[in-house]
Amino acid sequence: MKTRAAVAFEAKKPLEIVELDLEGPKAGEVLVEIMATGICHTDAYTLDGFDSEGIFPSILGHEGAGIVREVGAGVTSLKPGDHVIPLYTPECRQCKSCLSGKTNLCTAIRATQGKGLMPDGTTRFSYKGAPVYHYMGCSTFSNFTVLPEIALAKIREDAPFDKACYIGCGVTTGVGAVINSAKVTPGSNVVIFGLGGIGLNVIQGARMVGADKIIGVDINDDKAQWGKMFGMTDFVNPTKIDTDIVSKLVEMTDGGADYTFDCTGNTTVMRQALEACHRGWGVSTVIGVAEAGKEISTRPFQLVTGRVWKGSAFGGARGRTDVPKIVDWYMNGKIEIDPMITHVLTLDEINKGFELMHEGKSIRSVVVF
Amino acid sequence: MKTRAAVAFEAKKPLEIVELDLEGPKAGEVLVEIMATGICHTDAYTLDGFDSEGIFPSILGHEGAGIVREVGAGVTSLKPGDHVIPLYTPECRQCKSCLSGKTNLCTAIRATQGKGLMPDGTTRFSYKGAPVYHYMGCSTFSNFTVLPEIALAKIREDAPFDKACYIGCGVTTGVGAVINSAKVTPGSNVVIFGLGGIGLNVIQGARMVGADKIIGVDINDDKAQWGKMFGMTDFVNPTKIDTDIVSKLVEMTDGGADYTFDCTGNTTVMRQALEACHRGWGVSTVIGVAEAGKEISTRPFQLVTGRVWKGSAFGGARGRTDVPKIVDWYMNGKIEIDPMITHVLTLDEINKGFELMHEGKSIRSVVVF
Repeated sequence: MKTRAAVAFEAKKPLEIVELDLEGPKAGEVLVEIMATGICHTDAYTLDGFDSEGIFPSILGHEGAGIVREVGAGVTSLKPGDHVIPLYTPECRQCKSCLSGKTNLCTAIRATQGKGLMPDGTTRFSYKGAPVYHYMGCSTFSNFTVLPEIALAKIREDAPFDKACYIGCGVTTGVGAVINSAKVTPGSNVVIFGLGGIGLNVIQGARMVGADKIIGVDINDDKAQWGKMFGMTDFVNPTKIDTDIVSKLVEMTDGGADYTFDCTGNTTVMRQALEACHRGWGVSTVIGVAEAGKEISTRPFQLVTGRVWKGSAFGGARGRTDVPKIVDWYMNGKIEIDPMITHVLTLDEINKGFELMHEGKSIRSVVVF
Repeated sequence: MKTRAAVAFEAKKPLEIVELDLEGPKAGEVLVEIMATGICHTDAYTLDGFDSEGIFPSILGHEGAGIVREVGAGVTSLKPGDHVIPLYTPECRQCKSCLSGKTNLCTAIRATQGKGLMPDGTTRFSYKGAPVYHYMGCSTFSNFTVLPEIALAKIREDAPFDKACYIGCGVTTGVGAVINSAKVTPGSNVVIFGLGGIGLNVIQGARMVGADKIIGVDINDDKAQWGKMFGMTDFVNPTKIDTDIVSKLVEMTDGGADYTFDCTGNTTVMRQALEACHRGWGVSTVIGVAEAGKEISTRPFQLVTGRVWKGSAFGGARGRTDVPKIVDWYMNGKIEIDPMITHVLTLDEINKGFELMHEGKSIRSVVVF
């Protein structure tokens, strides 16, 4: 079949909207009509050539929502008409990682996914007879895409696609980091570094679980109003204080934060986030993706005196199990998404979405097919 | 009163055995006759001048056991004749840290303890009229010493002093790191870097909680027999393998260890310990004390993909609560101490104990008064 898609033919070039050939789903695979897709920093990271493992030509996009149109042989958990969110972190429920009950990092299809291929080692997309690669196992910048059954979360049918798609990455990454990775407890003091699309979701996650002080840190004062909208209680701009940010935060939290989150990808900030934690029990969670080759450092004394350094990928969420619950939370009003979707675009306008992100003008742009 | 003590008059000089003046216990304080004391690397670290906050002249020693001889006003939990272990990490049960239930790092007397003083800001020791300072709030290299009531664990009277003293630091630090800090679970694979007095106690802690594979790593082959004595199942000498130690350990543990422990104080080893952890859930605990100014580093990707970096001080043990339990475990045969006490010395021989340690000839030397 044919599908329209925004293709990344090479790094550092705008996406091109073309018509591709798409093979139907093989055994264990599902054809999905993508109804809406968010544009995330990770897509830009790859498109801008920062990802040393980036593959071109490929179809980016990993934050979508759509409808199952066809299922391959052996698919039992989904049927045509089901509403789904593609999962760049699948959940096979069979591998050592899934069965451990201690991580969401399913390894069932990791090897092929990292190469832009389906689990059988081939790609379903082609353009003028030449292969076009999958991206993060999702490729939601295509109107139709094929995914393994284990990489699709079935969601309720009354959830609007243009909001639910954001749960495919940003919402789950932020809210999940609070709930699943850091396990923030009620009454805690929480500090969030970086108030972009992830940071705001960490804020509303902290609000949802009953945190006390929710302190946002950003070098852009405009982000203060955004943070407040989702539950932030205090804002600090580190460029506008006369002390270092760690001392300031330790003072604001009477000894240090119970939980801190890095949502910047900046390794210097990651260190500040750890060191702003309370002696004895503070937990710092790295969410942001650092530039290739960058390292984090600290004095080991920070750990020996009780601070914990950890990280979170896809919010520690097991996609098929947890994503439908987050959709429920959105539909029930426990979390908000609508105000974060600042721009809605057509597929033809997708490059504008990247521009808005780079200019810091959007929280989230969503492409509606 | 008078007391014999080994005094550190200055850094990098042998201890001198002299007779000191000792003031009796003030309110909330307790006079203890030290019956036995271990010699720990931390004492050597300070004596050798590596501790930038080291104070001289002082009475080192923090791993003792003894008998209460006199109590000051207001002391209610101890009476003369009680057997006790001095605690360099006290447990006041009143401060924010104690009440948090999340850390053993009581802050009640931290400020004065770090300055070599009792909580009222003075020292009880003097020599020829000049003050001699306390060390880690214990000063167990003195036959008699004064401690705050909150810095003494009351233990059973049938525990031999020359073994129980080791519970004042090494045993609790190692066994406690397994139980309280890392919370090792039965069936886990555990890797211990550095098989000295702490590492061996991590090994027997891992055995006690039912770990499966217990892998010891040391550059000294002689340590293999020591590790095996306490439950080590596998030994690796990183200088004698043809691959890097992380790859070797990942292979031996089918993907990485569930728990790793650094007992070396070497920051390069600390990184290896983190990176030898299993993706998704491996927890690495820093126990060793690094040289001043040294930092640990890693790629944040290590954390984002599920490894946790934490630390442990005094095995995460709340001294007054947990130390008596560890004494019970020793008396009941759940853990061993006797084979680790490789040398028993008199106070006059104390400098020999430091030599044996530096030469790697002792696991633990104990001075018996």
